[in-house]
Amino acid sequence: MFTFPSPNQQTVAMTECVFCAIVERRVDASIVWEDHAVVAFLDRSPVFKGHVLVVPRAHVETLPALPTDSVATFFTVVQRVAAALPEALDAHGTFVAINNVVSQSVPHLHAHVVPRRRKDGLRGFFWPRVKYDDADDVATFAARVRDALRAE
Amino acid sequence: MFTFPSPNQQTVAMTECVFCAIVERRVDASIVWEDHAVVAFLDRSPVFKGHVLVVPRAHVETLPALPTDSVATFFTVVQRVAAALPEALDAHGTFVAINNVVSQSVPHLHAHVVPRRRKDGLRGFFWPRVKYDDADDVATFAARVRDALRAE
Repeated sequence: MFTFPSPNQQTVAMTECVFCAIVERRVDASIVWEDHAVVAFLDRSPVFKGHVLVVPRAHVETLPALPTDSVATFFTVVQRVAAALPEALDAHGTFVAINNVVSQSVPHLHAHVVPRRRKDGLRGFFWPRVKYDDADDVATFAARVRDALRAE
Repeated sequence: MFTFPSPNQQTVAMTECVFCAIVERRVDASIVWEDHAVVAFLDRSPVFKGHVLVVPRAHVETLPALPTDSVATFFTVVQRVAAALPEALDAHGTFVAINNVVSQSVPHLHAHVVPRRRKDGLRGFFWPRVKYDDADDVATFAARVRDALRAE
């Protein structure tokens, strides 16, 4: 079976989830929080130093796949990390983000919590924007989202 | 008192929160979900069309300020929207993000839920990365975050 080197030269089978391996302590990570359901550790390729990833212990691929009764547990830790980073790192705020499917490098749900400082250079390119054509265009998009939410 | 025009030419006092005004139906918005505690509506300057903002009805500035007993209610709606958008808009995934303080345009907690498609052009510039100097540098940052989490 093919393997690739982990950050600490341990090997993880390519068919296996690297975040599951971290959760199970088979791969080292700089863990900053763990409880019965959630583990948080430093991203080893941070947007800014101190960038934390929060993951559920259970292998769940995306936010929509997280069991409803796990939402509070997971996001309470995300909230705690978002509260702790400014204090820990002398930052002004945080950026909390979850990529679902697209741009998701590891298919195990993870919330990024990134320390932010004023004038840290991320503002400009973080939020490119488009325009709706007109009021009808807005109404059409709103109706599609509304209908999908109602259908769940 | 100074006023500025809202999206629909209604006026909102500059000292007032525009998201509170939307929640209270004093300013129009394309609302896609509302319940006793949470309202979701289209961002009028979307990253991609169908980009939704999810806000608590209560005026809370940031994620750390959200009362613990509101975390489940708020993020259950965020999750529902993240599940609905791909279906509603024929998208592949979503980007869920919260800016706390830095890059936060309106000081009323809001989760962005942005529909994403493969090759939609956001990948490259969304995640600039830095490097830790060495293992000690990593350990130092981990310890600072760990200590702040323990202290809460």
